Amino acid sequence: MKRASSTDELKLILDDEMGNIVNAEYLELVLTPGFVDKRIYAIYLIETYHYTYHNARNQALVATRPECRDIRYMKYCLKHALDEAGHELMALHDLKKSGYFSIDYKEMKDSDLPKPLMATEILIAYLYRASTTGNPLTRLGYSFWAERIYEYLSPLMAMFGQLGVEKSAMTFLVDHSAIDAEHAVEVDRAINMFAKTPQDWEDIEDCMKTSLRLKAKVMDAVFEEFVKLKKGTSDRYNFLNK
Amino acid sequence: MKRASSTDELKLILDDEMGNIVNAEYLELVLTPGFVDKRIYAIYLIETYHYTYHNARNQALVATRPECRDIRYMKYCLKHALDEAGHELMALHDLKKSGYFSIDYKEMKDSDLPKPLMATEILIAYLYRASTTGNPLTRLGYSFWAERIYEYLSPLMAMFGQLGVEKSAMTFLVDHSAIDAEHAVEVDRAINMFAKTPQDWEDIEDCMKTSLRLKAKVMDAVFEEFVKLKKGTSDRYNFLNK
Amino acid sequence: MKRASSTDELKLILDDEMGNIVNAEYLELVLTPGFVDKRIYAIYLIETYHYTYHNARNQALVATRPECRDIRYMKYCLKHALDEAGHELMALHDLKKSGYFSIDYKEMKDSDLPKPLMATEILIAYLYRASTTGNPLTRLGYSFWAERIYEYLSPLMAMFGQLGVEKSAMTFLVDHSAIDAEHAVEVDRAINMFAKTPQDWEDIEDCMKTSLRLKAKVMDAVFEEFVKLKKGTSDRYNFLNK
Amino acid sequence: MKRASSTDELKLILDDEMGNIVNAEYLELVLTPGFVDKRIYAIYLIETYHYTYHNARNQALVATRPECRDIRYMKYCLKHALDEAGHELMALHDLKKSGYFSIDYKEMKDSDLPKPLMATEILIAYLYRASTTGNPLTRLGYSFWAERIYEYLSPLMAMFGQLGVEKSAMTFLVDHSAIDAEHAVEVDRAINMFAKTPQDWEDIEDCMKTSLRLKAKVMDAVFEEFVKLKKGTSDRYNFLNK
Repeated sequence: MKRASSTDELKLILDDEMGNIVNAEYLELVLTPGFVDKRIYAIYLIETYHYTYHNARNQALVATRPECRDIRYMKYCLKHALDEAGHELMALHDLKKSGYFSIDYKEMKDSDLPKPLMATEILIAYLYRASTTGNPLTRLGYSFWAERIYEYLSPLMAMFGQLGVEKSAMTFLVDHSAIDAEHAVEVDRAINMFAKTPQDWEDIEDCMKTSLRLKAKVMDAVFEEFVKLKKGTSDRYNFLNK
Repeated sequence: MKRASSTDELKLILDDEMGNIVNAEYLELVLTPGFVDKRIYAIYLIETYHYTYHNARNQALVATRPECRDIRYMKYCLKHALDEAGHELMALHDLKKSGYFSIDYKEMKDSDLPKPLMATEILIAYLYRASTTGNPLTRLGYSFWAERIYEYLSPLMAMFGQLGVEKSAMTFLVDHSAIDAEHAVEVDRAINMFAKTPQDWEDIEDCMKTSLRLKAKVMDAVFEEFVKLKKGTSDRYNFLNK
Repeated sequence: MKRASSTDELKLILDDEMGNIVNAEYLELVLTPGFVDKRIYAIYLIETYHYTYHNARNQALVATRPECRDIRYMKYCLKHALDEAGHELMALHDLKKSGYFSIDYKEMKDSDLPKPLMATEILIAYLYRASTTGNPLTRLGYSFWAERIYEYLSPLMAMFGQLGVEKSAMTFLVDHSAIDAEHAVEVDRAINMFAKTPQDWEDIEDCMKTSLRLKAKVMDAVFEEFVKLKKGTSDRYNFLNK
Repeated sequence: MKRASSTDELKLILDDEMGNIVNAEYLELVLTPGFVDKRIYAIYLIETYHYTYHNARNQALVATRPECRDIRYMKYCLKHALDEAGHELMALHDLKKSGYFSIDYKEMKDSDLPKPLMATEILIAYLYRASTTGNPLTRLGYSFWAERIYEYLSPLMAMFGQLGVEKSAMTFLVDHSAIDAEHAVEVDRAINMFAKTPQDWEDIEDCMKTSLRLKAKVMDAVFEEFVKLKKGTSDRYNFLNK
């Protein structure tokens, strides 16, 4: 297996992975007219809210570790954490705008939303571990794909649009298409600046692959939960059937 | 979905899950005469070493949390951590006995073994998160199946035996068949003693399912890595081809 | 400054430190007939409850650290944590027996006791830091004096006895005089077994001195708070004036 | 004891504390012509380096806690951590400029400087604990005095100037006199914005007092270490006698 030692090579591996992680069976159903409806957007938003809630937190944790000695990398982590802070509120805003939630975030309790699906819990768990153990550069592998995911978001936005979701209820997706383009450049610069050893590149690549696959599982789980909802077997999303 | 509110119900759900997590395609290949060989045991042992290394650690972490207020549960966690401490050394012993490793554990460095496969990293990450956030009772769901897995180990031991693994190189499996029977009783007693609210039972059940599925993924990954090894595409287990 | 490199030398330094940390001015007042009364015992017990509450927790944390590689030391830490777990309940028992508290510990909330004095907070903070950073052997320096403090407890028990505290309300002190004698032997054995380098001995000695001085400050603070209580200027212990 | 419930009242208490924490005996010696020399500045800088190293780290940790729910406060913490990151390098710069250190910070190892004095370790330990447990607002009490300490720095700078320290070797002090004036306004604004309950004000006030007293102890320890250095009994600062 060829290992990346540049962001260009990392990008090639990312493209390859992106091709492999699509669940063809699910995709066909999603594209079958009438199979999915707007409720899948609500499920997507809630799971997105859950893992996004932790992004700034686990990013900041990298900066607090004794192993994080390079002051420039420490500052990069803190700045990036600051940039990410509160992005989960966009998912919440979109959920409200779509008519599925009405509580102000300042008053909201954890129990006001269904708890994360198993796949989402696993993604969150992995990101905390990747941020708090081993090579402090590891988490850059998550940022590498997460900040350029906008390149892959257009079809998703088009699909949600066809389900009747308004643009004004897509701030999370729209914002990440716009802002993250800039972030992607910063992440590339950071990787090229801080990754020095083959081990650094390997750890970043492994984190990219692992977090990407776990994110793909979250998308699968969103779809599966939607199917359960249709069948009436969802144990947490029935409140969407109002 | 029916939720468990007793260890008997938890056991029924466990049986059901156990039936679902087997990868039929992989199982068929494993049972095909001549497809697998003793090297799969080495891969199994190394991945087992990796996650077992953390079992006592994440178990002890539960006891240190401010949310862990019941002194009896705190003591249970510490006692259980003490019982689990060093079990990874049995996997290491078996690896040596099988002729795949020769370094004394006191001298060994992390880099002396291939690092954990992605699936193993994910299991480890999840167990740390389950042990350090949310309901302190959560991790009992992992112990619930892990301590009674001995019921399911006989076929595995028989299979490894057929590959030529000696009994003396199966201390991890043998021990867990013997000792854990007693632990299983303790875990049941602990769950029945400490789980009080529906939320407690739900959190324990969720942890049981999640950790079991992640463990099944580890077993799948062991098999996949063995297939790569046969094909010559493994990036970390080639040292077994000596 | 001569550095210890054996438990005998550590003991000599401890004796020396013990002589230095006594606040002569306070001691004279304590020994002045009629100056202190039984309420000082209540203050002592509550502050003791507070830091003792964390002893098993910070001890167990040592065992969970990646740097804690020696399996025998890991087991020592877990066993010692198990031994320490719940000792704070003896302080609570004594407080009840002395007539100053009436809530069952299972129902009690943090707010049912005055929060720790500044000196107690500082001791707790130091013990967590010593247990979670740097040399994993560090905390042995705390155990070294804490487990042999019984040698110094007789005068304290005699003094409290003269204030009218019954033996049955001194389980924390009595127990630590009895049980800890055995623990002291174990701690000595552990130090001699695990401390290998001059740095190990230095870290253990530093922790011994630091935690001992901070504990002495807790005793001073207990006295100062009692003086405030007499003067009517205590902001948290007025409830003892019933 | 009157408790503060505004930053003005907090300021009055701070003034009062500042008056109480000065060690008159030490101050007299410091002001005695010829008693101290430039080496005390080196000791001051190294201890300052040590605790400052952790300021951005423990500040960022506040933002990562589950209890830190207010997104504005979370952002404040991350922004403040970013502002503080690397300030320890100013102390290192000044140490070099004064001729007491010559290693580039990128190559430097922990062992290149004497380890922190006991008093400095205790301050660091307290700040981590205050940042990671209890009320997430607590640490504001540290920022409250630390960011306005510039008001008290002039005499210190004058004293060091008289010992022959050049202005160019006082970037840490000069910078904190200049930049922190702005920070002090931000901290005041933050406290007034986020502190809502009497408990919030109490926790902030307690942290202010505790961290200030521990910082005063660091200053005392710097002086005591200088006296040891003069007497030839310092166990870690002899390298300054070159």
